[in-house]
Amino acid sequence: MTTDSTSDRSVPDEVHETLMEATYRALCAHGYAELTMQRIADEAGKSKSLLHYHYGTKRELLVAFLDFLLDHFEQRVEETEGDAPEERLRFLLDKMVPDEDDDGEYDRFGLALAEIRTQAPYVEAYRKQIAQNEAAIRGRLADVIRDGIEQGVFRDVDPDRTATLLFAALDGARLQRVVVSEPDAENEQTAATEAPNEVRAALETFVVSDLLREEGSQ
Amino acid sequence: MTTDSTSDRSVPDEVHETLMEATYRALCAHGYAELTMQRIADEAGKSKSLLHYHYGTKRELLVAFLDFLLDHFEQRVEETEGDAPEERLRFLLDKMVPDEDDDGEYDRFGLALAEIRTQAPYVEAYRKQIAQNEAAIRGRLADVIRDGIEQGVFRDVDPDRTATLLFAALDGARLQRVVVSEPDAENEQTAATEAPNEVRAALETFVVSDLLREEGSQ
Repeated sequence: MTTDSTSDRSVPDEVHETLMEATYRALCAHGYAELTMQRIADEAGKSKSLLHYHYGTKRELLVAFLDFLLDHFEQRVEETEGDAPEERLRFLLDKMVPDEDDDGEYDRFGLALAEIRTQAPYVEAYRKQIAQNEAAIRGRLADVIRDGIEQGVFRDVDPDRTATLLFAALDGARLQRVVVSEPDAENEQTAATEAPNEVRAALETFVVSDLLREEGSQ
Repeated sequence: MTTDSTSDRSVPDEVHETLMEATYRALCAHGYAELTMQRIADEAGKSKSLLHYHYGTKRELLVAFLDFLLDHFEQRVEETEGDAPEERLRFLLDKMVPDEDDDGEYDRFGLALAEIRTQAPYVEAYRKQIAQNEAAIRGRLADVIRDGIEQGVFRDVDPDRTATLLFAALDGARLQRVVVSEPDAENEQTAATEAPNEVRAALETFVVSDLLREEGSQ
Protein backbone atom coordinates (compact mmCIF):
# COMPACT_ATOMS: atom_id res chain seq x y z
CA MET A 1 0.00 0.00 0.00
CA THR A 2 1.12 3.55 -0.61
CA THR A 3 2.14 5.94 2.15
CA ASP A 4 1.17 9.59 2.34
CA SER A 5 4.77 10.77 2.58
CA THR A 6 5.38 13.92 0.53
CA SER A 7 8.36 12.37 -1.23
CA ASP A 8 6.36 9.34 -2.29
CA ARG A 9 5.79 9.76 -6.02
CA SER A 10 2.93 7.25 -6.38
CA VAL A 11 5.01 4.14 -6.00
CA PRO A 12 2.92 1.16 -7.20
CA ASP A 13 1.85 -1.15 -4.33
CA GLU A 14 3.88 -4.09 -5.58
CA VAL A 15 7.07 -2.06 -5.98
CA HIS A 16 6.52 -0.48 -2.56
CA GLU A 17 6.19 -3.93 -0.97
CA THR A 18 9.34 -5.16 -2.72
CA LEU A 19 11.34 -2.13 -1.61
CA MET A 20 10.09 -2.23 1.98
CA GLU A 21 10.91 -5.92 2.27
CA ALA A 22 14.35 -5.21 0.85
CA THR A 23 14.78 -2.47 3.49
CA TYR A 24 13.90 -5.01 6.18
CA ARG A 25 16.49 -7.49 4.89
CA ALA A 26 19.14 -4.78 4.49
CA LEU A 27 18.56 -3.57 8.07
CA CYS A 28 18.89 -7.14 9.39
CA ALA A 29 22.06 -7.70 7.37
CA HIS A 30 23.87 -4.41 7.95
CA GLY A 31 22.27 -2.69 10.94
CA TYR A 32 21.15 0.94 10.90
CA ALA A 33 24.59 2.59 10.91
CA GLU A 34 25.77 0.69 7.83
CA LEU A 35 22.50 0.92 5.90
CA THR A 36 22.81 2.64 2.54
CA MET A 37 20.40 3.24 -0.34
CA GLN A 38 22.73 1.13 -2.48
CA ARG A 39 22.41 -1.84 -0.12
CA ILE A 40 18.63 -1.60 -0.12
CA ALA A 41 18.64 -1.32 -3.92
CA ASP A 42 20.87 -4.39 -4.13
CA GLU A 43 18.54 -6.37 -1.86
CA ALA A 44 15.58 -5.34 -4.02
CA GLY A 45 17.33 -5.92 -7.34
CA LYS A 46 16.36 -2.34 -8.30
CA SER A 47 18.36 0.79 -9.05
CA LYS A 48 19.37 3.26 -6.39
CA SER A 49 17.88 6.08 -8.45
CA LEU A 50 14.46 4.38 -8.33
CA LEU A 51 14.64 4.44 -4.51
CA HIS A 52 15.55 8.13 -4.48
CA TYR A 53 12.83 8.90 -7.03
CA HIS A 54 10.08 7.28 -4.95
CA TYR A 55 11.22 8.04 -1.41
CA GLY A 56 13.70 10.93 -1.50
CA THR A 57 16.43 10.59 1.13
CA LYS A 58 17.36 7.55 3.22
CA ARG A 59 15.62 9.15 6.19
CA GLU A 60 12.41 9.57 4.22
CA LEU A 61 12.63 5.98 3.05
CA LEU A 62 13.03 4.82 6.66
CA VAL A 63 9.97 6.82 7.74
CA ALA A 64 8.03 5.10 4.93
CA PHE A 65 9.43 1.79 6.19
CA LEU A 66 8.26 2.46 9.77
CA ASP A 67 4.85 3.32 8.35
CA PHE A 68 4.93 0.03 6.40
CA LEU A 69 5.62 -1.85 9.66
CA LEU A 70 2.61 -0.12 11.21
CA ASP A 71 0.35 -1.12 8.28
CA HIS A 72 1.62 -4.67 8.57
CA PHE A 73 0.86 -4.72 12.30
CA GLU A 74 -2.63 -3.25 11.82
CA GLN A 75 -3.38 -5.87 9.15
CA ARG A 76 -2.39 -8.70 11.45
CA VAL A 77 -4.57 -7.29 14.22
CA GLU A 78 -7.52 -6.99 11.81
CA GLU A 79 -7.14 -10.62 10.83
CA THR A 80 -7.83 -11.64 14.44
CA GLU A 81 -11.10 -9.69 14.65
CA GLY A 82 -13.88 -12.03 15.70
CA ASP A 83 -11.57 -14.24 17.76
CA ALA A 84 -12.07 -14.42 21.53
CA PRO A 85 -10.38 -11.56 23.48
CA GLU A 86 -8.03 -13.86 25.43
CA GLU A 87 -6.99 -15.55 22.19
CA ARG A 88 -6.35 -12.18 20.50
CA LEU A 89 -4.40 -10.91 23.51
CA ARG A 90 -2.18 -14.00 23.61
CA PHE A 91 -1.64 -13.77 19.85
CA LEU A 92 -0.39 -10.18 20.13
CA LEU A 93 1.88 -11.00 23.09
CA ASP A 94 3.31 -14.06 21.34
CA LYS A 95 4.18 -11.90 18.31
CA MET A 96 6.61 -9.94 20.50
CA VAL A 97 8.80 -12.91 21.48
CA PRO A 98 11.17 -14.88 19.20
CA ASP A 99 9.71 -17.71 17.11
CA GLU A 100 10.87 -21.22 17.92
CA ASP A 101 12.59 -21.40 14.53
CA ASP A 102 14.08 -17.89 14.73
CA ASP A 103 17.51 -17.78 13.08
CA GLY A 104 18.70 -14.53 14.62
CA GLU A 105 16.28 -12.22 12.80
CA TYR A 106 14.55 -11.21 16.06
CA ASP A 107 17.90 -10.01 17.40
CA ARG A 108 19.22 -8.42 14.24
CA PHE A 109 16.04 -6.54 13.41
CA GLY A 110 15.46 -5.69 17.08
CA LEU A 111 18.89 -4.08 17.23
CA ALA A 112 18.35 -2.13 13.98
CA LEU A 113 15.04 -0.83 15.33
CA ALA A 114 16.66 0.13 18.65
CA GLU A 115 19.31 2.05 16.71
CA ILE A 116 16.67 3.94 14.72
CA ARG A 117 14.77 4.67 17.94
CA THR A 118 17.81 6.20 19.67
CA GLN A 119 18.11 8.52 16.63
CA ALA A 120 14.53 9.67 17.09
CA PRO A 121 15.28 12.54 19.51
CA TYR A 122 17.55 14.00 16.81
CA VAL A 123 15.33 13.31 13.78
CA GLU A 124 11.85 14.82 14.00
CA ALA A 125 10.38 12.60 11.26
CA TYR A 126 11.54 9.40 13.03
CA ARG A 127 10.21 10.63 16.34
CA LYS A 128 6.74 11.35 14.96
CA GLN A 129 6.47 8.04 13.12
CA ILE A 130 7.81 6.01 16.06
CA ALA A 131 5.42 7.75 18.47
CA GLN A 132 2.58 6.89 16.07
CA ASN A 133 3.64 3.24 15.70
CA GLU A 134 4.02 2.70 19.43
CA ALA A 135 0.75 4.48 20.23
CA ALA A 136 -0.94 2.12 17.75
CA ILE A 137 0.51 -0.98 19.44
CA ARG A 138 -0.60 0.24 22.87
CA GLY A 139 -3.98 1.21 21.39
CA ARG A 140 -4.67 -2.18 19.82
CA LEU A 141 -3.69 -4.01 23.01
CA ALA A 142 -5.99 -1.69 25.00
CA ASP A 143 -8.85 -2.31 22.51
CA VAL A 144 -8.58 -6.06 23.00
CA ILE A 145 -8.56 -5.67 26.79
CA ARG A 146 -11.53 -3.28 26.58
CA ASP A 147 -13.43 -5.80 24.42
CA GLY A 148 -12.71 -8.52 26.95
CA ILE A 149 -14.04 -6.39 29.79
CA GLU A 150 -17.18 -5.48 27.82
CA GLN A 151 -17.79 -9.14 26.99
CA GLY A 152 -17.40 -10.04 30.67
CA VAL A 153 -14.40 -12.29 29.96
CA PHE A 154 -11.81 -10.02 31.63
CA ARG A 155 -12.19 -8.43 34.99
CA ASP A 156 -12.46 -4.65 35.16
CA VAL A 157 -8.97 -3.11 34.86
CA ASP A 158 -7.64 0.10 33.29
CA PRO A 159 -7.21 -1.02 29.64
CA ASP A 160 -4.70 1.69 28.65
CA ARG A 161 -2.51 1.24 31.68
CA THR A 162 -2.52 -2.53 31.32
CA ALA A 163 -1.66 -2.26 27.62
CA THR A 164 1.21 0.10 28.46
CA LEU A 165 2.60 -2.50 30.89
CA LEU A 166 2.33 -5.36 28.39
CA PHE A 167 4.05 -3.45 25.59
CA ALA A 168 6.78 -1.93 27.80
CA ALA A 169 7.62 -5.31 29.37
CA LEU A 170 8.04 -7.15 26.07
CA ASP A 171 9.78 -4.20 24.45
CA GLY A 172 12.21 -3.85 27.36
CA ALA A 173 12.93 -7.57 27.33
CA ARG A 174 13.73 -7.46 23.62
CA LEU A 175 16.06 -4.49 24.05
CA GLN A 176 17.85 -6.22 26.93
CA ARG A 177 18.30 -9.31 24.82
CA VAL A 178 19.46 -7.68 21.60
CA VAL A 179 22.08 -5.41 23.17
CA VAL A 180 23.96 -8.26 24.83
CA SER A 181 23.26 -10.97 22.25
CA GLU A 182 26.21 -12.91 20.93
CA PRO A 183 26.68 -16.53 19.92
CA ASP A 184 28.99 -17.53 22.81
CA ALA A 185 26.87 -16.12 25.63
CA GLU A 186 28.22 -16.22 29.18
CA ASN A 187 26.24 -16.69 32.36
CA GLU A 188 25.19 -13.10 32.89
CA GLN A 189 24.03 -12.88 29.32
CA THR A 190 21.80 -15.93 29.54
CA ALA A 191 19.30 -13.99 31.65
CA ALA A 192 19.04 -11.30 28.98
CA THR A 193 18.76 -13.86 26.17
CA GLU A 194 15.88 -15.52 27.96
CA ALA A 195 14.23 -12.24 28.98
CA PRO A 196 11.59 -12.16 26.20
CA ASN A 197 10.30 -15.66 26.93
CA GLU A 198 10.60 -15.19 30.70
CA VAL A 199 8.66 -11.94 30.51
CA ARG A 200 6.03 -13.55 28.28
CA ALA A 201 5.59 -16.32 30.89
CA ALA A 202 5.46 -13.81 33.76
CA LEU A 203 2.82 -11.77 31.92
CA GLU A 204 0.72 -14.92 31.59
CA THR A 205 0.97 -15.50 35.37
CA PHE A 206 0.53 -11.95 36.60
CA VAL A 207 -1.60 -10.26 33.95
CA VAL A 208 -3.47 -12.66 31.63
CA SER A 209 -4.48 -15.02 34.47
CA ASP A 210 -5.48 -12.03 36.54
CA LEU A 211 -7.65 -10.62 33.75
CA LEU A 212 -9.38 -14.00 33.45
CA ARG A 213 -9.92 -14.26 37.21
CA GLU A 214 -13.51 -14.05 38.31
CA GLU A 215 -14.47 -10.72 39.90
CA GLY A 216 -14.64 -10.77 43.66
CA SER A 217 -12.33 -13.78 44.00
CA GLN A 218 -9.35 -11.66 45.11
CA MET B 1 36.02 3.46 44.82
CA THR B 2 38.49 2.07 42.32
CA THR B 3 37.57 -0.22 39.46
CA ASP B 4 39.59 -3.24 38.42
CA SER B 5 39.92 -2.05 34.83
CA THR B 6 43.38 -2.76 33.43
CA SER B 7 43.81 0.82 32.27
CA ASP B 8 43.03 2.21 35.72
CA ARG B 9 46.34 3.41 37.14
CA SER B 10 45.28 3.55 40.80
CA VAL B 11 43.06 6.57 40.54
CA PRO B 12 42.39 7.89 44.08
CA ASP B 13 38.77 7.34 45.22
CA GLU B 14 37.98 11.03 45.40
CA VAL B 15 39.35 11.77 41.92
CA HIS B 16 37.51 8.74 40.53
CA GLU B 17 34.23 9.98 42.00
CA THR B 18 34.79 13.49 40.60
CA LEU B 19 35.57 12.13 37.14
CA MET B 20 32.65 9.70 37.10
CA GLU B 21 30.22 12.41 38.17
CA ALA B 22 31.65 14.65 35.45
CA THR B 23 31.08 11.83 32.94
CA TYR B 24 27.46 11.62 34.07
CA ARG B 25 26.94 15.36 33.60
CA ALA B 26 28.73 15.37 30.23
CA LEU B 27 26.55 12.48 29.00
CA CYS B 28 23.39 14.30 30.09
CA ALA B 29 24.55 17.52 28.42
CA HIS B 30 25.92 16.17 25.13
CA GLY B 31 24.57 12.64 24.66
CA TYR B 32 26.76 9.69 23.77
CA ALA B 33 27.56 10.63 20.16
CA GLU B 34 28.89 14.08 21.09
CA LEU B 35 30.73 12.95 24.23
CA THR B 36 34.45 13.69 24.17
CA MET B 37 37.25 13.33 26.73
CA GLN B 38 37.64 17.11 26.55
CA ARG B 39 34.00 17.67 27.54
CA ILE B 40 34.33 15.30 30.49
CA ALA B 41 37.57 16.99 31.54
CA ASP B 42 35.84 20.39 31.30
CA GLU B 43 32.95 19.17 33.49
CA ALA B 44 35.45 17.87 36.05
CA GLY B 45 37.73 20.91 35.94
CA LYS B 46 40.63 18.52 35.24
CA SER B 47 42.97 18.05 32.31
CA LYS B 48 42.20 15.72 29.42
CA SER B 49 45.58 14.06 29.89
CA LEU B 50 44.65 13.10 33.47
CA LEU B 51 41.60 11.28 32.10
CA HIS B 52 43.68 9.42 29.53
CA TYR B 53 46.30 8.59 32.16
CA HIS B 54 43.81 7.01 34.53
CA TYR B 55 41.32 5.41 32.14
CA GLY B 56 42.97 5.04 28.72
CA THR B 57 40.52 5.54 25.87
CA LYS B 58 37.02 7.01 25.95
CA ARG B 59 35.63 3.49 25.64
CA GLU B 60 37.62 2.33 28.66
CA LEU B 61 36.45 5.34 30.63
CA LEU B 62 32.85 4.53 29.75
CA VAL B 63 33.27 0.94 30.92
CA ALA B 64 34.62 2.31 34.23
CA PHE B 65 31.61 4.63 34.32
CA LEU B 66 29.15 1.73 33.83
CA ASP B 67 30.97 -0.10 36.63
CA PHE B 68 30.61 3.03 38.80
CA LEU B 69 26.85 3.02 38.15
CA LEU B 70 26.75 -0.60 39.26
CA ASP B 71 28.64 0.17 42.51
CA HIS B 72 26.28 3.06 43.13
CA PHE B 73 23.26 0.80 42.62
CA GLU B 74 24.66 -1.94 44.89
CA GLN B 75 25.33 0.64 47.62
CA ARG B 76 21.79 1.92 47.49
CA VAL B 77 20.45 -1.63 47.71
CA GLU B 78 22.70 -2.35 50.69
CA GLU B 79 21.36 0.71 52.49
CA THR B 80 17.87 -0.84 52.44
CA GLU B 81 18.99 -4.09 54.07
CA GLY B 82 16.92 -4.74 57.15
CA ASP B 83 13.84 -2.99 55.73
CA ALA B 84 10.71 -5.05 55.07
CA PRO B 85 10.73 -6.87 51.68
CA GLU B 86 7.70 -4.99 50.31
CA GLU B 87 9.30 -1.68 51.29
CA ARG B 88 12.59 -2.64 49.62
CA LEU B 89 10.81 -3.82 46.48
CA ARG B 90 8.82 -0.59 46.18
CA PHE B 91 11.98 1.44 46.80
CA LEU B 92 13.78 -0.28 43.91
CA LEU B 93 10.82 0.10 41.56
CA ASP B 94 10.37 3.77 42.46
CA LYS B 95 14.04 4.39 41.63
CA MET B 96 13.30 3.46 38.00
CA VAL B 97 10.67 6.16 37.39
CA PRO B 98 11.28 9.94 37.14
CA ASP B 99 11.38 11.94 40.37
CA GLU B 100 8.62 14.49 40.91
CA ASP B 101 11.17 17.29 40.65
CA ASP B 102 12.99 15.80 37.66
CA ASP B 103 14.23 18.54 35.33
CA GLY B 104 14.84 16.37 32.28
CA GLU B 105 17.77 14.36 33.66
CA TYR B 106 15.80 11.11 33.56
CA ASP B 107 15.26 11.61 29.83
CA ARG B 108 18.70 12.94 28.92
CA PHE B 109 20.61 10.28 30.85
CA GLY B 110 18.15 7.58 29.76
CA LEU B 111 18.82 8.46 26.14
CA ALA B 112 22.61 8.50 26.60
CA LEU B 113 22.42 5.06 28.24
CA ALA B 114 20.23 3.74 25.42
CA GLU B 115 22.79 5.01 22.92
CA ILE B 116 25.63 3.24 24.74
CA ARG B 117 23.52 0.07 24.91
CA THR B 118 22.88 -0.01 21.16
CA GLN B 119 26.67 0.19 20.70
CA ALA B 120 27.14 -2.88 22.89
CA PRO B 121 26.81 -5.47 20.11
CA TYR B 122 29.76 -3.76 18.38
CA VAL B 123 31.91 -3.11 21.47
CA GLU B 124 32.77 -6.22 23.47
CA ALA B 125 33.74 -4.28 26.63
CA TYR B 126 30.41 -2.44 26.71
CA ARG B 127 28.50 -5.67 26.16
CA LYS B 128 30.20 -7.45 29.05
CA GLN B 129 29.77 -4.57 31.48
CA ILE B 130 26.15 -3.94 30.48
CA ALA B 131 25.32 -7.64 30.82
CA GLN B 132 26.89 -7.54 34.29
CA ASN B 133 25.01 -4.38 35.35
CA GLU B 134 21.65 -5.67 34.15
CA ALA B 135 22.19 -9.11 35.69
CA ALA B 136 22.90 -7.34 39.00
CA ILE B 137 19.67 -5.34 38.82
CA ARG B 138 17.65 -8.48 38.06
CA GLY B 139 19.56 -10.33 40.79
CA ARG B 140 18.89 -7.77 43.53
CA LEU B 141 15.20 -7.60 42.64
CA ALA B 142 15.05 -11.41 42.74
CA ASP B 143 16.84 -11.45 46.15
CA VAL B 144 14.24 -9.12 47.63
CA ILE B 145 11.39 -11.23 46.25
CA ARG B 146 13.10 -14.41 47.56
CA ASP B 147 13.46 -12.80 51.02
CA GLY B 148 9.79 -11.88 50.99
CA ILE B 149 8.79 -15.44 50.12
CA GLU B 150 11.05 -16.88 52.84
CA GLN B 151 9.62 -14.46 55.41
CA GLY B 152 6.11 -15.48 54.41
CA VAL B 153 5.23 -11.94 53.30
CA PHE B 154 5.08 -12.72 49.56
CA ARG B 155 3.30 -15.66 48.04
CA ASP B 156 5.37 -18.33 46.34
CA VAL B 157 6.35 -17.15 42.83
CA ASP B 158 9.44 -17.65 40.63
CA PRO B 159 11.72 -14.86 41.97
CA ASP B 160 13.99 -14.67 38.89
CA ARG B 161 11.16 -14.60 36.38
CA THR B 162 9.26 -12.02 38.40
CA ALA B 163 12.39 -9.84 38.70
CA THR B 164 12.94 -10.10 34.93
CA LEU B 165 9.40 -8.83 34.34
CA LEU B 166 9.78 -5.90 36.75
CA PHE B 167 13.07 -4.75 35.27
CA ALA B 168 12.04 -5.22 31.63
CA ALA B 169 8.77 -3.34 32.12
CA LEU B 170 10.34 -0.27 33.72
CA ASP B 171 13.30 -0.35 31.34
CA GLY B 172 11.03 -0.61 28.30
CA ALA B 173 8.86 2.23 29.58
CA ARG B 174 11.89 4.47 30.01
CA LEU B 175 13.16 3.69 26.52
CA GLN B 176 9.73 4.42 25.04
CA ARG B 177 9.62 7.73 26.86
CA VAL B 178 13.14 8.95 26.10
CA VAL B 179 13.07 8.23 22.37
CA VAL B 180 9.98 10.35 21.74
CA SER B 181 10.50 12.95 24.45
CA GLU B 182 10.27 16.58 23.40
CA PRO B 183 8.95 19.68 25.14
CA ASP B 184 5.92 20.26 22.88
CA ALA B 185 4.56 16.74 23.03
CA GLU B 186 1.60 15.79 20.85
CA ASN B 187 -1.15 13.35 21.70
CA GLU B 188 0.58 10.16 20.61
CA GLN B 189 3.65 11.13 22.57
CA THR B 190 1.79 11.68 25.81
CA ALA B 191 1.31 7.94 26.23
CA ALA B 192 5.07 7.38 25.94
CA THR B 193 5.87 10.24 28.32
CA GLU B 194 3.58 8.76 30.93
CA ALA B 195 4.73 5.18 30.31
CA PRO B 196 7.16 4.95 33.29
CA ASN B 197 4.59 6.10 35.85
CA GLU B 198 1.79 4.11 34.21
CA VAL B 199 3.93 0.97 34.23
CA ARG B 200 4.92 1.59 37.84
CA ALA B 201 1.21 1.83 38.77
CA ALA B 202 0.34 -1.28 36.75
CA LEU B 203 3.15 -3.24 38.44
CA GLU B 204 1.68 -2.27 41.80
CA THR B 205 -1.73 -3.62 40.72
CA PHE B 206 -0.64 -6.76 38.94
CA VAL B 207 2.59 -7.79 40.67
CA VAL B 208 3.17 -6.18 44.08
CA SER B 209 -0.47 -6.63 45.20
CA ASP B 210 -0.37 -10.17 43.89
CA LEU B 211 2.82 -10.96 45.81
CA LEU B 212 1.17 -9.66 48.99
CA ARG B 213 -2.02 -11.66 48.37
CA GLU B 214 -2.63 -14.42 50.85
CA GLU B 215 -1.92 -17.90 49.46
CA GLY B 216 -5.00 -19.82 48.50
CA SER B 217 -7.15 -16.73 48.02
CA GLN B 218 -7.00 -16.92 44.23
